[in-house]
Parts: sequence; C-alpha cells; structure tokens
Amino acid sequence: MKAAIVGVTGYTGIELVRLIHQHPSLTLGTLHSHSMHKNSISELYPHLQQLCEQEVEAYDAEKIMENNDLVFFATPSGISKDLVHEFVAKDFPVIDLSGDLRLKDLESYQRWYKKEPTTQEIVDQAVYALPEFSPIKGNLLSNPGCYATAAILSLVPLIQAQLIALDTIILDGKSGLSGAGKQLSDSSHYVTVDENMTMYKLNQHQHIPEIIQYLQSFDADLTTLQFTTSLIPIKRGIFMTLYAKVKEGVTNEQIQQAFDVYQTKPFVRVQSNGRLPELRQVTGTNFCDIGFDLNEENQTLTVVAVIDNLMKGAAGQAIQNFNLWAGLDETCGLTQVPLFP
Amino acid sequence: MKAAIVGVTGYTGIELVRLIHQHPSLTLGTLHSHSMHKNSISELYPHLQQLCEQEVEAYDAEKIMENNDLVFFATPSGISKDLVHEFVAKDFPVIDLSGDLRLKDLESYQRWYKKEPTTQEIVDQAVYALPEFSPIKGNLLSNPGCYATAAILSLVPLIQAQLIALDTIILDGKSGLSGAGKQLSDSSHYVTVDENMTMYKLNQHQHIPEIIQYLQSFDADLTTLQFTTSLIPIKRGIFMTLYAKVKEGVTNEQIQQAFDVYQTKPFVRVQSNGRLPELRQVTGTNFCDIGFDLNEENQTLTVVAVIDNLMKGAAGQAIQNFNLWAGLDETCGLTQVPLFP
Amino acid sequence: MKAAIVGVTGYTGIELVRLIHQHPSLTLGTLHSHSMHKNSISELYPHLQQLCEQEVEAYDAEKIMENNDLVFFATPSGISKDLVHEFVAKDFPVIDLSGDLRLKDLESYQRWYKKEPTTQEIVDQAVYALPEFSPIKGNLLSNPGCYATAAILSLVPLIQAQLIALDTIILDGKSGLSGAGKQLSDSSHYVTVDENMTMYKLNQHQHIPEIIQYLQSFDADLTTLQFTTSLIPIKRGIFMTLYAKVKEGVTNEQIQQAFDVYQTKPFVRVQSNGRLPELRQVTGTNFCDIGFDLNEENQTLTVVAVIDNLMKGAAGQAIQNFNLWAGLDETCGLTQVPLFP
Amino acid sequence: MKAAIVGVTGYTGIELVRLIHQHPSLTLGTLHSHSMHKNSISELYPHLQQLCEQEVEAYDAEKIMENNDLVFFATPSGISKDLVHEFVAKDFPVIDLSGDLRLKDLESYQRWYKKEPTTQEIVDQAVYALPEFSPIKGNLLSNPGCYATAAILSLVPLIQAQLIALDTIILDGKSGLSGAGKQLSDSSHYVTVDENMTMYKLNQHQHIPEIIQYLQSFDADLTTLQFTTSLIPIKRGIFMTLYAKVKEGVTNEQIQQAFDVYQTKPFVRVQSNGRLPELRQVTGTNFCDIGFDLNEENQTLTVVAVIDNLMKGAAGQAIQNFNLWAGLDETCGLTQVPLFP
Repeated sequence: MKAAIVGVTGYTGIELVRLIHQHPSLTLGTLHSHSMHKNSISELYPHLQQLCEQEVEAYDAEKIMENNDLVFFATPSGISKDLVHEFVAKDFPVIDLSGDLRLKDLESYQRWYKKEPTTQEIVDQAVYALPEFSPIKGNLLSNPGCYATAAILSLVPLIQAQLIALDTIILDGKSGLSGAGKQLSDSSHYVTVDENMTMYKLNQHQHIPEIIQYLQSFDADLTTLQFTTSLIPIKRGIFMTLYAKVKEGVTNEQIQQAFDVYQTKPFVRVQSNGRLPELRQVTGTNFCDIGFDLNEENQTLTVVAVIDNLMKGAAGQAIQNFNLWAGLDETCGLTQVPLFP
Repeated sequence: MKAAIVGVTGYTGIELVRLIHQHPSLTLGTLHSHSMHKNSISELYPHLQQLCEQEVEAYDAEKIMENNDLVFFATPSGISKDLVHEFVAKDFPVIDLSGDLRLKDLESYQRWYKKEPTTQEIVDQAVYALPEFSPIKGNLLSNPGCYATAAILSLVPLIQAQLIALDTIILDGKSGLSGAGKQLSDSSHYVTVDENMTMYKLNQHQHIPEIIQYLQSFDADLTTLQFTTSLIPIKRGIFMTLYAKVKEGVTNEQIQQAFDVYQTKPFVRVQSNGRLPELRQVTGTNFCDIGFDLNEENQTLTVVAVIDNLMKGAAGQAIQNFNLWAGLDETCGLTQVPLFP
Repeated sequence: MKAAIVGVTGYTGIELVRLIHQHPSLTLGTLHSHSMHKNSISELYPHLQQLCEQEVEAYDAEKIMENNDLVFFATPSGISKDLVHEFVAKDFPVIDLSGDLRLKDLESYQRWYKKEPTTQEIVDQAVYALPEFSPIKGNLLSNPGCYATAAILSLVPLIQAQLIALDTIILDGKSGLSGAGKQLSDSSHYVTVDENMTMYKLNQHQHIPEIIQYLQSFDADLTTLQFTTSLIPIKRGIFMTLYAKVKEGVTNEQIQQAFDVYQTKPFVRVQSNGRLPELRQVTGTNFCDIGFDLNEENQTLTVVAVIDNLMKGAAGQAIQNFNLWAGLDETCGLTQVPLFP
Repeated sequence: MKAAIVGVTGYTGIELVRLIHQHPSLTLGTLHSHSMHKNSISELYPHLQQLCEQEVEAYDAEKIMENNDLVFFATPSGISKDLVHEFVAKDFPVIDLSGDLRLKDLESYQRWYKKEPTTQEIVDQAVYALPEFSPIKGNLLSNPGCYATAAILSLVPLIQAQLIALDTIILDGKSGLSGAGKQLSDSSHYVTVDENMTMYKLNQHQHIPEIIQYLQSFDADLTTLQFTTSLIPIKRGIFMTLYAKVKEGVTNEQIQQAFDVYQTKPFVRVQSNGRLPELRQVTGTNFCDIGFDLNEENQTLTVVAVIDNLMKGAAGQAIQNFNLWAGLDETCGLTQVPLFP
C-alpha cells in the first residue's frame, strides 16, 4: 500500500517518512506541503540524501487519491478540518494526526482551538484512534494528541478498576521542544530554552477536553482534570506524571493488577518492582513505559508515563493505527531497536 | 569580618567564594578542603585566576578559629556533624550548609541519611535558618536544603492562612545537576543526562523530614507529604511545583493575600496576575519567585516556586543568614543583577 | 556619570544593564528601544524585578543628551550609522557596540554588511576601541566585534614579534547562540541547535575586514585571512582557535615572550605551561584567556583564545573602554567573581 | 550468520546490537562483558525491553567460537590485543573496533597508547578496514578510529590527486561525549560539559599515528599532521575540519573532481555547490558527509566532514566491513532513514 503525507515538512511529517521507509507493507506515496515545494525532500532535509529523494508537491486532493491508498495529515491544527471533506466524500482512508477531528463537541473545539470547527457529521464519523482501548475501524481515524496519549494510558486502567478518586487527578506533563513544532517564537529560541524550564497553558491546554472526553467513556463521573504542561531543554519526549488519591484500602497489588491490562498490549511496557522509567528509554520508539509508586502514608499514587512525542505521541501511533486498520500485526515496522544513546 | 569555608572545592563552596568576594562587609578568610590542597584555588578553578588566588588548606579547626570570625561548612552530609563539636564548645559561629544539623530527631537523621547522627545537644542548639520565617540567632545556624527551601516558601503562607487541605499536598521538584554535587556516577555522566529526564528518590528524599518538621511548627496536623524529585538537563535551578486542594470556598484573592506575607521579604517575589515564573529568571540570584493558579473547577491550587539551588537553595541563603546574624541588612551583597541570558 | 542605552532589550543591552548596575562610578540613565516600550524593563526581563525597574522609552536623541553623560548603542548593525550624526554634531560621547563604525573604508562596509554606510567623516572620527592596543580617546568609540576581539588578541603579539608567516593564518571560531542575537530563524530554533554544530558564513563573515584592517596597522603585509565561524549548542562564549606556521627557528620561548605583552593587561590571562583554556572559565567575565602550543614537528602554532561574547566581545569591553575614556581604572566594575558553574 | 559481541555494554557495543538487530543477514549471537553479567541486556538498558532480551555472559572464547560465526570486539583499547590470539589461532573471524590492532609499528602503539602491544604477527595479519579505500579480506579486521575515519576520508582524494601541500595539513576535530565512552571522570560530568568547550590531547591523540600510517600508503612524503580534538556539549557526532594550502593553480573544479571518487562509494555524500554539511544530518547514519570551500585569495582549502562517531566512526563501519567481508552488498542493513530531529 502507498501512503501520501500532507504536511511532510513538519517534525511529524518527517517522522512518518522515517517510519514508512522502514515499514514492510507500506511505501511512501506522494509528499505534500502547503508552503515548500522541492524537487527532493532532501533539499529541505539533507539527512535524507540518497535515502529518500522524493518530490515535495503542492497539495492536490485529486492527485493524492489517484496515486495513494491512504493519506496521513501531519498538518498543524486548523488545516485538515477543511480538507478532509473531499476524502470523506469518496470514502478515501484518512489518518489525521492534528487536533481537528478529536473533539466530538464542536463548541469545545472552538473554545480550545480558537478556530472554526469542521462539521458534526465529520467528527461523528472520526474514530479516536487510541489503539490500546479503541477498535480501529472505518476510513477516518483521528490520531490522539501526544500529552493525551500519555495521560490516557496512565489513567484508563486505574479508572476501569475504580481505584482512584476522580476529583484528585493531577497530570503534570513535561515536553521537549519538538512537541511545539517548527514555528519560530521567543519560546523556541535556543537561548530561551537552554538552562530553563517553563510551565505554559496551565489548565488551558487543548488536550484537556480530549482527555476528559475519552476518559468519560470509562467513567462518566470524570468531568475535570488538573493539567499542567512544561517545556524542558530536550528535543523529543514527554515525561508525564500522574498523581491521584487511591480509594480507601487500595493496595499496590491492585494497582499492579490494573496495569496488567497492558500485558497483551505490545507498546505499553509496565516497569516492575516500583521502578520508574526514564525518558530516554522510549526515545525513537513507539513504547509508552509506565512505572508507579503508592505512598501508603497518604494514599497518593504516583504514575510516570514516558513516550516519544513524535512516535507514540504522533507518527508511531499513526503507523500502529494503520497496521490495525490494514489488518496487519500491530507492531509491523515498529519494533526496530532505537538509537541509543 | 572574615569567613572560613570548609569544603570550598564543591559547587556550594565555590559559590560562597563568589558571594563573599562581592560582599561589602565580609571577606574571605581561610579556605579548606579535605582532599585537595592547592597553592591557589585558581589551580582548581581557572576562572578565578587574578580574581581569587587564595590557598586551599587542609582542615584545621584551631587554625580556622584563630584566623576567622565564622566558618561556613559547605561539606557533603556526614562531615560537619562530627566537626562542629569543637566550634560549638568554643561558641565559635558556624553556618552549616549540609543536612547534618537540620533534623531535631536523631533517629530520623539515621533513617533518612543512613549515617550516625550527631548529639541531641548539638541539634537542639542548631537553629533551622530559613530567614523568611525564623529568627536568625545563636552561633549555630543550620542552612535549609534546596528543595526544602522552595517547598517551605510555597507552603507556609497557605498553611498559616489555613487555605489548603493538608492531606492533599503534592510537591513535584525538578533540579539541575549541580544539585547533586560533583561526585561522579552514571547518573551525572553527560551522555546520561542529556536529552533525558529521570525521577529519583520518590518519597525517599532526605529533604522530606526536614520539610515536615518545619511545617509542623505552623500546623502540627501536617504529618506527611507526597514528594518527588527529578533531574532535568540543566546546570542550576530548582523548579518546584506544589499541588493542593484548597478548602471549600477559598478564593484566588485569599491566596493572593496569603502570599502578601512576602511583601516585606526582599527575596521572595510573588508574580502578579497569575503569571508563573520561569526557571531562568532566578538563576544566579537569591530570589525565590512564586506564581500560582487556582483551578476553580476542581479546587486545585498550583504553585510554582523557582530558586537557584546554589543560591537561595544553599550559598545565597547562607549569606542572607549571615547578614541577619551579623545585624546587617538582609540583602547585603545579594542584590547584584545576575548574568542573563 | 549616567549612561543611556539604546537597544536595551537585546542581549548586549541587557548585559550593559548588568554591568552598569554593578559599576561604582557609572549609573543607568535612560533606556531606549525602537520596538518595545515598557513601564519597567522587568516586564520584559522578569529576572530584573526589584533589581532594576526602569522605564524602556522610545528613542529620543534630544532626551538622551539632556539626561545622560554618554550613550551606548547596543543596536544591530544598520541603526547607529544614521543615529550617531546628531550626537557627533554636539560632541556627545558615544560608545557604539554595533559594526557600523568599525570599517574605515565605506565600500568595504557596503560589501560586507550589505547596507548603506555612514559618512567618511564619521568613520574617520570613530576610534576602534580595542583597549589592549589602542589608546581610548575622543567622544566616538567603536567597540570591536566579538570574533574580532578574540582573533586580534590572539594575533597581535605574534605579528608584532614577527613570529608567524602571515599567509598561513587560519582562524576557526566557535560561538554560542547569544552571539547571533534574539532574532528568530530556523538556525536559532532550539530543535535545530541542540545536538548539532554548523559552520556558517565561511570566509564571508563581516568581522573579517575589521580584523584585517586592524592587523594591518601592525603589519601592512597582512591582506587576507582564512576565517570560519561555527555555532555550537551553548548560550554564551567564543572559542577561537588560531593556526599559523611559525617562521623558521621560532621557539616556544619566543612565543611565550611575545604573549608576555599581556602581563600588563588586566583582562588577558595567558595560561602557563602549555595549558589551554576551556570556554567556561571566562563565562560572565571580561577576560580573554589564551593558551598555545607549538608543534615542533611541523612548525605549526595553535593558539586558543576564549572570551564571553557578551562581555569581552561586547558589553564588558564597552565598559572597559568607558573606564579608560573616563580616566578610571581599566578594571573598574569588572572584577567580580563570575557565576560558576 | 551469527555474531558475538564482546564489550556489549559500552556505547559501541550497544550500537552494534541495534545494527545487527536490523540487519537482514546477520543475527545476534552471544553477548559478553567482562564486568556486568545479566540475565537480560534490558536490565542494563531498559530501552531494549521486549526488543532484545539476550543474556550478557562472561567472556569465554571457546563458547564464542562454538556459538557464532564471527566476533566483534567493542572493548576499550588494551583488551583485544591479548584476546585475539586464540581466535587468530583458529582463523575465527574477528572485527576489532578498538585501537589495538591498527598500528603496524609496535613501538608506536606503546608510545601512543601507553600499553604493551600485541605481537608483530598479529598486527601484520590485521587489515586496516577502511572500506572506501582498502579491500576487506582475511579474518582479522581492524576497524578504524572515529576521528581517523573522518580525517582519512577528507584527505585521501586530495592526496591522491596531489592537490594540497602536505606540510600544511591541519585537522581540527570536535566530538560529542559518547566518543569518550562511559567511564566516569570530571571531564564527562554533566556540569563540566554543559555550556563549555574544551580542547584536549592537542597533538597527542592516539589517532594521529593511525592517520599518518594510512595516508603514507597514498603519499609517503606525509610524515606529520597538525591535529586537535575538542569536546562540545552533544552526545554523538564528529565535526572534522581540515585546512590545507592547495598547490599553485589548483582550482575548485579539480577539488570537486578529486572528491568525485566518492560517487561510487555509497556512504560518502559530497555536498554540491560549496554547501557545508551540518553535524546532525549524519546522526544515526553510516554516512560521512563532506563539503568544501577554496579561498582563492589565500589558496586555503577548507573541508568539513561530519560523521556519527558510533556509526561510521565505529559500529556502522564495522557492519559495512562485515558486509564486504561476507560478500553482501556494502549497504546491507545500513540504509534506514535515521531518527530526526
């Protein structure tokens, strides 16, 4: 099968190129960018010389459908919501990595993204494609956000097993700079980031409604979260810490059992014996590594989940979703040993 | 007045050299190290060439008392507890920057530091010298820990005003590598730290009993804390995040009023209008900058406090304590504009 | 005396604020920016809260002259060349930190800076203020460039003593990102800089004509240089490596003697015994530290010179020039122990 | 075929694991370490969980030969020189990544490595396996050093074409910290490396005799080099700058033609149009990317060559050598798109 990528010049787009290049059953189709057209993508990204020399073309929906079997939208929020209509109309498979199709409530999209939403019909059709808990089906997949992925994978087993007090959930996420994309701003200037840490969008991050919406399918009583996001001076990775009070009498073993749900999930590695994962152990991989610790003195549970924001937080999960959608093994093309250190 | 420094070759020791060098009423006396003796400290630290060329001598209590008016212990934990006896016996002024004299309960010291404690007499005599809330007096000052300083300054106003539920306190601290000192280990190797984040000593950090002990003087009901510490790839700085549930009906204004206690404290700068401090705005300074945000949906308060671990977290606070002890203005020698960026 | 700063919001401007704040004989006058006007500079730079709360005003030459004794231009190239006329006309003291007044040849300015030059009269009047070798006099001082300072201090003793073959000079400079200023570009984005090194403007850097022009005053035969500049992932500092063939028979001792010229220069510290300086030993200081090594097998001399680009490479040298201009001790306000590590 | 790795816990060893894991014709055999024996290598390297869970065993030559088809020595210098005898005696294939077998002159080894050499018979038998210029044959391959690889690939075309003056060659190499291995020292502590650059082993680096020895096979007149090595704050990569005077009349076109020798070499990408490579474009790959610029004013040629020190500088080149030795395509298992950014 051949896949087109729209928005190929962003960090997520270029990560899709890497993953598709190494995939045994998927090949690169056409590559598209709204702003930069090049005879070869290696003109933009010299690391690709001799490895991938495809043209970067203007966006052209017709051409995409003619020449490919599916399309990945690796565009910033606010683009695919308008472009998907044409593909949906023809039932052409779309995996959208942006935030445009994640929220089922159009007003919520408008409030959190400050943009006009797409139609209710489209969002109703879009499947929120978190493959550990959602069946991957249909031709319109909405790939979860990076923070959301780490948060949801930390929380679902605990909520399913009813182990924590819902009103005590705190999510404290730290991210590398690739999570913010390539756009230039004071906050992404090297001199600003280096030797610094900043908290941003406190309780205002657009992944909050996405997390709540999804978790409500497991427990409708969950209506609010405490959610912080910080930038730390690294390129890749999300280090998500979850704090919550466990319900009375909940034991460490019960928590361990709850997380055992991941024993059948190839991309979630629960650390044993109270060991916490470090961020770099997932860099370049599609894994979400989870560790936890219950403080029995005060019934506070700490869960640490680490992911690579461009992998399990974006392109890797999109390929995982593609695999499931295509009836392939979920891990197809995603089990290479990563670069280390 | 002249000050000796024991343990001058560590990061805290060398920061004391910087601060004493710029202090209008304090001069460098003798410099001591247990392991490295040099004709000039600039042989170890070439940045000091022509600025400070003092000898680094072996430790010698007699000589210290003869040639100085006070002594700073900038030694790792486990050293000063044995050495202070001689100074205390002669009532010679000591400011101890290590953890040795902070805990009033000897068993607690043994449990958390895994070392033999000093005597009860000594710890009873030692004043926990957090100058914003404790009178600085006597000739045996125990300088607070770096994480503890950030945690206590975040919490005391809220506890004094009885605004938060004590059993919901979560402290999530992130630190640069200088906080771990100069000792070599896999965890301080550049390749390990770079592009990584690790959580360590979860609920096992030796600053926990120190924080609880001190906060209990404000509310004896506080008996436990949830406390995490992480390393991020920077050299200096602590970014401390406090989460707690506010009591019913507590408003943003009440929190602001509680933090107004710092209006008379020169080294705590409370950010206005919900602005959160970034780490680098305190690098090189003795400030603790605090910002906060109340999530009214779930009554969760977030407080961010940033300090420079070698300044307000160690040497800067020691000088602040010296100033108060010596009857000088609290800010003496500590108000230089810091290096930026 | 009171000094105005034009372009105070840039890295060099803010470094001038730091230095003037700690200077015993100079105080901050008015602060100016073309683009950002604030009630307090601490709104832009929160680290300055309570330390420096001056207004940032629009540029106003009249007001500057009324309220100050001199003015520092810390503006990008292309600004001061037009603005200085008014000050020169009234013989008001100006220290210009930009590249606008450094080149005596107007065509050369146009070629290297791609901008219209100022007038010949102005550049003739401007003194190239490298205080180790040039008398500091007159009311129009042109502060050298950062790379140029490191290059010239490496070369002048060798050229004066006629020890090296002029046509073999190679300058290989590495710089931190603050050297490129605050402007946003792909090349200053954190994700681009981190874990990377790039060479730029090879033999096209605008400091080349400045270096050649100055060195020709020591040996007119010098007409060309090999000059490279690279970015490395740090904030501050220039690491300049000079390679040159020594003339036949030149010994290590002769080189040492040539560098002995700096024994009377307070801000150049020549390392002894073949030791090479590391970059961080000058961070935050006005020092240029120099080490060298002669490879006797192939008569190649290596000289390493390190400076802080914002200090000896910009603001620090400007204060050093001010000191000399004002008849003060050259080191006035510049001998504080720097932040370390 | 199956390959054993001795010294698997070092950075080079773990990179071999990654490369063999993704190789279509080579599989991991037994893994060995002198110091750390584990039931699974993922206990040491948690990123390998579920990807590679092999045992790390004690060193056992017999067992290695029984269970594998060849062995990679990824040990520090001073180990394989004694261990290879047993393998050589049985003509068992060895690819040695250390410096032990590179120098044909035993005294030279002793001088530069400060260790007892192996036997003349062994070093005579060892093939210096730089595959771009040396035929890969025999069962004892000595993999070149990282700096040496970048230096040699920059120089051979120029020397072959007799374009440069041999006595003017200067090599200025910058390296990330993984090049120095995992051993702990002040110079690899995060706080020392961060925001710093240091030059080390000036004209004393053990790769110097290796480079000279190899280049002499192209021009025996080359007897000396000027060679510097510096550490910059990154994890991976070598940025090698070569300066040399071209012979009279040499043109840019001639240099381009000389480098055209690489048109048939899959892992050397010569940049066109005077573009210089940036370091990150080879991170994670086996490429050596080369750019150059001739300064016609002073006949100085600048060549920049970038490699990943763990790939083309170590493990990647070892696999390339294996491919050639085994009669496979040279690029087998080495053309994956690398992680970026």
